[in-house]
Amino acid sequence: MKNIFKRLEQIKKQKPLIHHITNYVTVRDCADITKCFGASPVMADAIEEVSDMTSNSNALVLNIGTLNNNVIESMKVAGKTANEKNVPIIFDACGAGATKFRNDKCKELLSTFHPNIIKGNISEIATIAGLDIKTKGVDATEIEINKIDLAKQLAIKLKSVIVITGKQDIISDGIQTYTIENGCSMMGDIVGTGCMASSVIASFCAIEKNYILGCVSALVCFEIAAELAQEISNGLGSFKVNLFDGISKLNKDIIVKMGKILISK
Amino acid sequence: MKNIFKRLEQIKKQKPLIHHITNYVTVRDCADITKCFGASPVMADAIEEVSDMTSNSNALVLNIGTLNNNVIESMKVAGKTANEKNVPIIFDACGAGATKFRNDKCKELLSTFHPNIIKGNISEIATIAGLDIKTKGVDATEIEINKIDLAKQLAIKLKSVIVITGKQDIISDGIQTYTIENGCSMMGDIVGTGCMASSVIASFCAIEKNYILGCVSALVCFEIAAELAQEISNGLGSFKVNLFDGISKLNKDIIVKMGKILISK
Amino acid sequence: MKNIFKRLEQIKKQKPLIHHITNYVTVRDCADITKCFGASPVMADAIEEVSDMTSNSNALVLNIGTLNNNVIESMKVAGKTANEKNVPIIFDACGAGATKFRNDKCKELLSTFHPNIIKGNISEIATIAGLDIKTKGVDATEIEINKIDLAKQLAIKLKSVIVITGKQDIISDGIQTYTIENGCSMMGDIVGTGCMASSVIASFCAIEKNYILGCVSALVCFEIAAELAQEISNGLGSFKVNLFDGISKLNKDIIVKMGKILISK
Repeated sequence: MKNIFKRLEQIKKQKPLIHHITNYVTVRDCADITKCFGASPVMADAIEEVSDMTSNSNALVLNIGTLNNNVIESMKVAGKTANEKNVPIIFDACGAGATKFRNDKCKELLSTFHPNIIKGNISEIATIAGLDIKTKGVDATEIEINKIDLAKQLAIKLKSVIVITGKQDIISDGIQTYTIENGCSMMGDIVGTGCMASSVIASFCAIEKNYILGCVSALVCFEIAAELAQEISNGLGSFKVNLFDGISKLNKDIIVKMGKILISK
Repeated sequence: MKNIFKRLEQIKKQKPLIHHITNYVTVRDCADITKCFGASPVMADAIEEVSDMTSNSNALVLNIGTLNNNVIESMKVAGKTANEKNVPIIFDACGAGATKFRNDKCKELLSTFHPNIIKGNISEIATIAGLDIKTKGVDATEIEINKIDLAKQLAIKLKSVIVITGKQDIISDGIQTYTIENGCSMMGDIVGTGCMASSVIASFCAIEKNYILGCVSALVCFEIAAELAQEISNGLGSFKVNLFDGISKLNKDIIVKMGKILISK
Repeated sequence: MKNIFKRLEQIKKQKPLIHHITNYVTVRDCADITKCFGASPVMADAIEEVSDMTSNSNALVLNIGTLNNNVIESMKVAGKTANEKNVPIIFDACGAGATKFRNDKCKELLSTFHPNIIKGNISEIATIAGLDIKTKGVDATEIEINKIDLAKQLAIKLKSVIVITGKQDIISDGIQTYTIENGCSMMGDIVGTGCMASSVIASFCAIEKNYILGCVSALVCFEIAAELAQEISNGLGSFKVNLFDGISKLNKDIIVKMGKILISK
């Protein structure tokens, strides 16, 4: 847990640049949370500049929430550059399973570059794994499945760290698997927590090359901030404000006291 | 009034999926308010997936705030699918009257599909009705006109429920006309309340097939939450936060006590 | 200082229309702050309507934060219209220096129309001046340079008012140069304050034809509101809320008491 706080301090010190090609719904939330954690967000999706921007960045977030063909081509270029330059790619499978177009384009993207981390809720990750799931928009469909097994197997197959968010978060690289039990109900009641989680993961993986530890650290910090926020919120409006305030309150003692990480094998 | 609260509970229970093709300015507000009312927002505008997404949705919001030709084509496809599948369409005439392009495209859209509900401020609705109005950007131009007559006549002509928002809201299907006197001054002082109102209407009309009652319920709830928010706000920043918090506070007693609905014939 | 407050009152009275062609990250912040100051924001970027929209506007904000070729063409059309109709153009050099594409397109835009005001942080303005600077995303790179000289010389060369934002803001038309010492650390810790500053400048320059005074008034008001906000904020979430609330609190006494303007020659 102490290392988690050290990583948080590293972000503030190094101010890594996090390039996002993301959806236009939660893009400001992603920029805000990245900045709030001490990293520097940049959003750019013109195909003429994405390679340059990724080259200068310390992590790349690709989020398919509002896909279109222009964005897909830019993601391919940025993704290939990131792989060449060893810039970690966080692929957010936002809304995978919702339409055939989205599923097809997901496959196309994942065959063009190799994402170091793939994040989604259970129905999104199940879709990536090739299970026949119907996602309802961008919210999770509850399905009967062993999440830990799914994460492990997909991690081995794709050689990526798999992050399944939910009441419990599962993080696996196929060898090690972590379960995080932080978080709170209001996180699921507002828009953007999933997308923001990817930005936080990117900020940590920009400074921690052991990506599974980067992912664990990111979610623990983000979700502790959310817990602190829910305690003092009168509704969903103030929860969002308090979530950003909560990040300012994170320190070593709080993380050690509140962090709930289980390691399974 | 009691039925209004029942409808609010129905949204939370059924979690209808609300597909939006909307402007990039207030899109997050629309997502937030939809979620806050208990429905599930999804934004998707790629022409390849809008038909799929609309088919799986319980209501479709089309908002022309930041139109371009790609979006228009996607709106046509989504609109036609919605009509075929009996998914209610809420057409937000955001900024109608501001430019010739916008007026022309409005006509084109409304001749391609049939919107179940058309919502706008007085200058936007007057533009839809073919009156020669100059809208100043997206804010209402005050014009001398009988709003109730305008709403009634346009409702009969287009066979749609017409919603004119303003200090008093007028809602008419040509046979019944309601006037809502809830709301507060700060609603006009911030950006996005008009767009959010459409999302709330969509959430109610997704679960209430009597659309005029869906519209009335939506605006009463949204505007009572705004009144509760204004009472405790120190400025426009906290008003927006309190507006979202206010929705969490809505219950049967508050709605019965504060709702101000007039029925004119 | 008294005139600053008079200008603020003029905005509320005249409600000027501020046309923005801007990035999709902070677009809502720009709309919110414009509205909060009493002006009327409108965002429209379809090439078919930008000329019409600019013609009806009182100022035009062009922000290159998330450029692409469609947006560039629309900016050219809007910019030329603005020059013809004497609508002041505020050009926000957001992210200039970050990629070759962005630098090339900046030059192309500035050779197509004449911006009345150019605003950026030090690395962005240095890029516009042709210095070989590497901007890290959209955040300022600290460089050793005399900001006042840079602003003056660029103002003379381009015949534009140059605004360099930072801990101290420099505003110069080549003849007169002002330094503003308002503002606070949290402004640099959240996303969007730079973009919002351009919207506020546009709102003031829409009603004050002496643009250098418009710029000074805008930044003094915006940054005093930020100072008021920082005093009472528990973190970055509440800071943003309090910033919008702070604008509602601006009055003549506060501006006179807190404004810190230096005039150098």
